[in-house]
Amino acid sequence: MRLAVIPGDGIGPEVVTEALKVLGEVAPNAEITNYDLGASRWHATGELLPESVLGELREHDAILLGAVGDPTVPSGILERGLLLRLRFELDHHVNLRPGRLYPGVRSPLSDPGEIDLLVVREGTEGPYAGNGGLLRKDTENEIATEVSVNTAFGIRRVVADAFNRAEQRPRKHLTLVHKTNVLEHAGSLWSRIVEEVSLEHPDVTVAYSHVDAATIHLVTDPSRFDVIVTDNLFGDIITDLVAAVTGGIGLAASGNLDITRTNPSMFEPVHGSAPDIAGQNLADPTAAVLSMSLLLDHLGMPEAARRIEASVAFDLATRDQASPGNTQAIGDRLAALVSSNTSQVG
Amino acid sequence: MRLAVIPGDGIGPEVVTEALKVLGEVAPNAEITNYDLGASRWHATGELLPESVLGELREHDAILLGAVGDPTVPSGILERGLLLRLRFELDHHVNLRPGRLYPGVRSPLSDPGEIDLLVVREGTEGPYAGNGGLLRKDTENEIATEVSVNTAFGIRRVVADAFNRAEQRPRKHLTLVHKTNVLEHAGSLWSRIVEEVSLEHPDVTVAYSHVDAATIHLVTDPSRFDVIVTDNLFGDIITDLVAAVTGGIGLAASGNLDITRTNPSMFEPVHGSAPDIAGQNLADPTAAVLSMSLLLDHLGMPEAARRIEASVAFDLATRDQASPGNTQAIGDRLAALVSSNTSQVG
Ligand SMILES: CC(C)[C@H](C(=O)O)[C@@H](O)C(=O)O
Ligand SMILES: CC(C)[C@H](C(=O)O)[C@@H](O)C(=O)O
Repeated sequence: MRLAVIPGDGIGPEVVTEALKVLGEVAPNAEITNYDLGASRWHATGELLPESVLGELREHDAILLGAVGDPTVPSGILERGLLLRLRFELDHHVNLRPGRLYPGVRSPLSDPGEIDLLVVREGTEGPYAGNGGLLRKDTENEIATEVSVNTAFGIRRVVADAFNRAEQRPRKHLTLVHKTNVLEHAGSLWSRIVEEVSLEHPDVTVAYSHVDAATIHLVTDPSRFDVIVTDNLFGDIITDLVAAVTGGIGLAASGNLDITRTNPSMFEPVHGSAPDIAGQNLADPTAAVLSMSLLLDHLGMPEAARRIEASVAFDLATRDQASPGNTQAIGDRLAALVSSNTSQVG
Repeated sequence: MRLAVIPGDGIGPEVVTEALKVLGEVAPNAEITNYDLGASRWHATGELLPESVLGELREHDAILLGAVGDPTVPSGILERGLLLRLRFELDHHVNLRPGRLYPGVRSPLSDPGEIDLLVVREGTEGPYAGNGGLLRKDTENEIATEVSVNTAFGIRRVVADAFNRAEQRPRKHLTLVHKTNVLEHAGSLWSRIVEEVSLEHPDVTVAYSHVDAATIHLVTDPSRFDVIVTDNLFGDIITDLVAAVTGGIGLAASGNLDITRTNPSMFEPVHGSAPDIAGQNLADPTAAVLSMSLLLDHLGMPEAARRIEASVAFDLATRDQASPGNTQAIGDRLAALVSSNTSQVG
């Protein structure tokens, strides 16, 4: 396994270290190459994602990213120039974001019920396409447009993937989240394709929720959801809410997948670089460790992935929630748990 | 006061009746004209909003709308053909949605804190502009676009209104909610205008939150927000979440304002027509009554508005939350409360 690692900024390097510690327990022979990208490189050289680095990244089986971002970098520079650029260049069309409320974890909801859902967010089009522009810039008559681009091709592949995943889950239920009553063109295309693909999956039940209503359901009755498939922007919004109700972005993992496997997929915790607590051994590396488990799953090591998840579940159920230990201590515990019920699998 | 009333579908007529009952206590001489629009008219005649009706509506001081929508009408027809058409034709550029957790009301959050915020949602542009289209419709190469149109003119008037409102509130705090790191063109225009208008309001503190992060804050720390100003779609999404954390859309009121007063503003509960409970005297009319209070405020009757709010607050604090009474009973209670501390004001 050739793994590219982008530790990034802030707490990124810290949580990545722990994720790699855990990886060492299941795949000690993984070949790891670090890539220095993010705020400090940009400050030092002006570079965001040099072509040569992108070329090297392509030669790997997968990418683990810690976090990028720093208050010293103007908003949008690293997001569009590095993070989104990676997602687009590497055709990460399936943005996978599980939302599970682990036993022992406190939700801000007083009665969360059982939450075990999976958001399959489209990752390469919609309002993220980067289309749009400005007219009469900096005048009092300025006009700004943003074009959401939705293609049958792009929707079909993510919807098909979502149905495949729904089919493998006990509840076999899929909800399309959109805003079809207002965004009629994109909405009709998403609806049509969900309907078409559903014919190939007669065992999957299908529901629809407007994105505004979905935010209500996510705080009043989140257990109604199993797999959610949605567009890039709606997925961005609701996955932060999903993370919040399942204990916070400190626990939320994500995978940016090219399911055709033409390009390496990229795995990253949903949280940011948290510069306020960086370098202090304070960050919870759990989201990075869970992202590693998604990575192993994707690379065909489901057993290793399940072991990591089980170890995280055990640790979350037994840890002192008020003081779960520092970054390194949590990583050590998770690595020990993984090793204790692991024979090496890779 | 000449008031146009669109009772609409489902529970719409029931909640409107109670809102008018309350109005009777503060403005017994209001002249009320009913307009039959919504699902049944569409079924009977195919009409959504005839020009002649639109013309008559324009002659009123304000419009009260109950709810429109029915499962027998294809999604989008009434929304775009009636509700959004009214908002656009009558230039309802400020969509006002207060979010207040009244004492006694149960939030799904275990620790909601004090919530008393106001979302000022842009109402006439953004992704709601109805721009966009389909290419290669119904083929496997279909492409759908949705264009978010943002004008300096449109943003400035809603941002100015939001600052004015923030200035009149004790905390004098305003948060712009957007997604500037991805939607760079619209984001830069919104940011620039908020910055510009803020110079005229040095006493208002300004914050910014990405829409995804805002959903987290709304469930983990909602009391951080005072006034939120945001675009049409983000406003749609977060106001449903705001309603959910403040006790549900059954209590959420809204106003669609033309602040230039060229056209009548329109007030409506955020909830829908709830066909499952329609005609059974089961709906809670509180959101409609609170919408009436927004209406009175807008028409220059702030005292009457405050009395209605105080009556609602009293009723919510003292009602049996599990069985608050039927539609009519709640309306009777609210009317009695309003009358008991009211000298007629209109
Ligand atoms: C940082 C930002 C560009 C990104 C996104 O909007 O996708 C983030 O919010 C996420 O969800 O991964
Ligand atoms: C019914 C729909 C068109 C409407 C909207 O999207 O604005 C509703 O959700 C609202 O918030 O008033």
